[in-house]
Amino acid sequence: MKIGIYGYGNLGRGVEQAIAKNPDMILKAVFTRRDPAAVQIATRGVPVVAADTVEQWADKLDVLILCGGSATDLPHMTPALASHFHVVDSYDNHANIPHHYDVVDAAAKESGHVALISCGWDPGMFSLNRLYANCILPDGSDYTFWGRGVSQGHSDAIRRIEGVLDARQYTVPVDEAVERVRRGENPSLTTREKHRRECYVVAVPGADQEAIRQQIVTMPAYFADYDTTVTFISAEEMQRDHAGLPHGGRVIRTGYTSKQNRQTIEYTLTLDSNPEFTGSVLTAFARAVYRMAQRGESGCRTVFDVAPVDLSLIDRRDMIAHLL
Amino acid sequence: MKIGIYGYGNLGRGVEQAIAKNPDMILKAVFTRRDPAAVQIATRGVPVVAADTVEQWADKLDVLILCGGSATDLPHMTPALASHFHVVDSYDNHANIPHHYDVVDAAAKESGHVALISCGWDPGMFSLNRLYANCILPDGSDYTFWGRGVSQGHSDAIRRIEGVLDARQYTVPVDEAVERVRRGENPSLTTREKHRRECYVVAVPGADQEAIRQQIVTMPAYFADYDTTVTFISAEEMQRDHAGLPHGGRVIRTGYTSKQNRQTIEYTLTLDSNPEFTGSVLTAFARAVYRMAQRGESGCRTVFDVAPVDLSLIDRRDMIAHLL
Repeated sequence: MKIGIYGYGNLGRGVEQAIAKNPDMILKAVFTRRDPAAVQIATRGVPVVAADTVEQWADKLDVLILCGGSATDLPHMTPALASHFHVVDSYDNHANIPHHYDVVDAAAKESGHVALISCGWDPGMFSLNRLYANCILPDGSDYTFWGRGVSQGHSDAIRRIEGVLDARQYTVPVDEAVERVRRGENPSLTTREKHRRECYVVAVPGADQEAIRQQIVTMPAYFADYDTTVTFISAEEMQRDHAGLPHGGRVIRTGYTSKQNRQTIEYTLTLDSNPEFTGSVLTAFARAVYRMAQRGESGCRTVFDVAPVDLSLIDRRDMIAHLL
Repeated sequence: MKIGIYGYGNLGRGVEQAIAKNPDMILKAVFTRRDPAAVQIATRGVPVVAADTVEQWADKLDVLILCGGSATDLPHMTPALASHFHVVDSYDNHANIPHHYDVVDAAAKESGHVALISCGWDPGMFSLNRLYANCILPDGSDYTFWGRGVSQGHSDAIRRIEGVLDARQYTVPVDEAVERVRRGENPSLTTREKHRRECYVVAVPGADQEAIRQQIVTMPAYFADYDTTVTFISAEEMQRDHAGLPHGGRVIRTGYTSKQNRQTIEYTLTLDSNPEFTGSVLTAFARAVYRMAQRGESGCRTVFDVAPVDLSLIDRRDMIAHLL
């Protein structure tokens, strides 16, 4: 399976690591919007190519994995590239997924390609777990908790405040809320009751730290609805203690199968590296995209449409013998 | 969707409860090998029918859910009934699944039916989680822990000992082993290190309790390889404290996506009622069997072959908008 990576930030590097772990895949090219000569990749002997020449690779790649951002890249990138390639993306703007689906579906159908969107862990594996759990326990309630992990969007929001040199924001689930859900209390939880936010900030020397703190904790949508702590640290501490991009979370569904019997399904991820895990999920689903394309399918797909057997390198007989 | 239940023990009753939670399904008949007049079911107005007349129902049912046991019933029951119906079973003898698959596949293909085997939670949801986690983290290790929960097979084994009136056996995961796995130690664990066994026994008055205890803890395969505790209780205590059939467990996969980054995927079930949960999984997959049959498919299927979208009553557009 010949794979291309389109975009070489954290996620692109994660996909590159994942391809190396899958012996049926080979990385053929990395596409970048930067100067290709300035981009150093981890895999030896693989060309780094200018993104605007990607169409020349149309018959050289089986699947192109799109590693752009959801805010501004993927809304136009995925439909444009689905006209030339079988693609996978990680579009994660939940509210706009139906629109993204329609635009990508039209492009993919017209050109006869398979395009799997919104893959990763949320959306992605968390979505799958919500669906399975809903089907098994139709009479129940869903809860999703995120963290403890770094939110890039929230970290960026802090960095835009005057006087801030660098920032890292951790989303932290409130243990008591998780415990109440597990106990089957079926609680109605406010935003504040579910998660809190921990911010680590490197300030410009002499900056008014209290003013920065106030701007953070009152920022609408990002922080105002949460219990937020702000800790000022040095650039060295930031580098030493907060260089990673850990994340994770859990999807819990509790439901009743009869009057007295409560059942709980819980799916938990504990990730040292969010982009490497997301890249690994994209890579597994790229295999399914390849197989769907081989069968002559076309159009937009989601993780819900993929039979698990299509994700695996393992022969179906062996799978039945050893994993079932 | 017109559903039949074949076999009306604990699992059959669990399926009956699950059908009542799924508004697109209707229970049409319960088949029993006992005297139908002596079987009282929970659903009003549904006939209880002699199992040996089941073939007369061939055009009256969309899917027949098989609720026999794996030891002696399902090996012949599933292929025989797959010749006349689209079926789902919960065959759980892991070592014999490939053989069961072949026999069922031949019968289902010849008669043009879909037969989904080995559905439930293990095999079933645990298998799915093992597969997904293996595909995402090819470089890793799997661990499955069961319990705390009642093992019917082990309880029955104790009941066969002379001087025993009743018994309940709980399989209990060893917390320390679970913690070592979560910490990423990737341990090689012996049978004894993974689970222990708690037995509650009602003895015949005057029976030699120490002799019974010795027979239990030295029983090969069932108990000899485990740390086993035996507690003698009264019939009243058994009825009061051990009437339920709770179970559960967890599937954990830890793996590396790069040299330094460890990722952990964990799927946990905490079940008040094992048969009701198993019945709920069978019922969700019955919907998928119905849809595969509608598309003209035939042959043996497993949970690995089912695209999640086929399990759900929710419209695919709504699913993409709300669960993805």
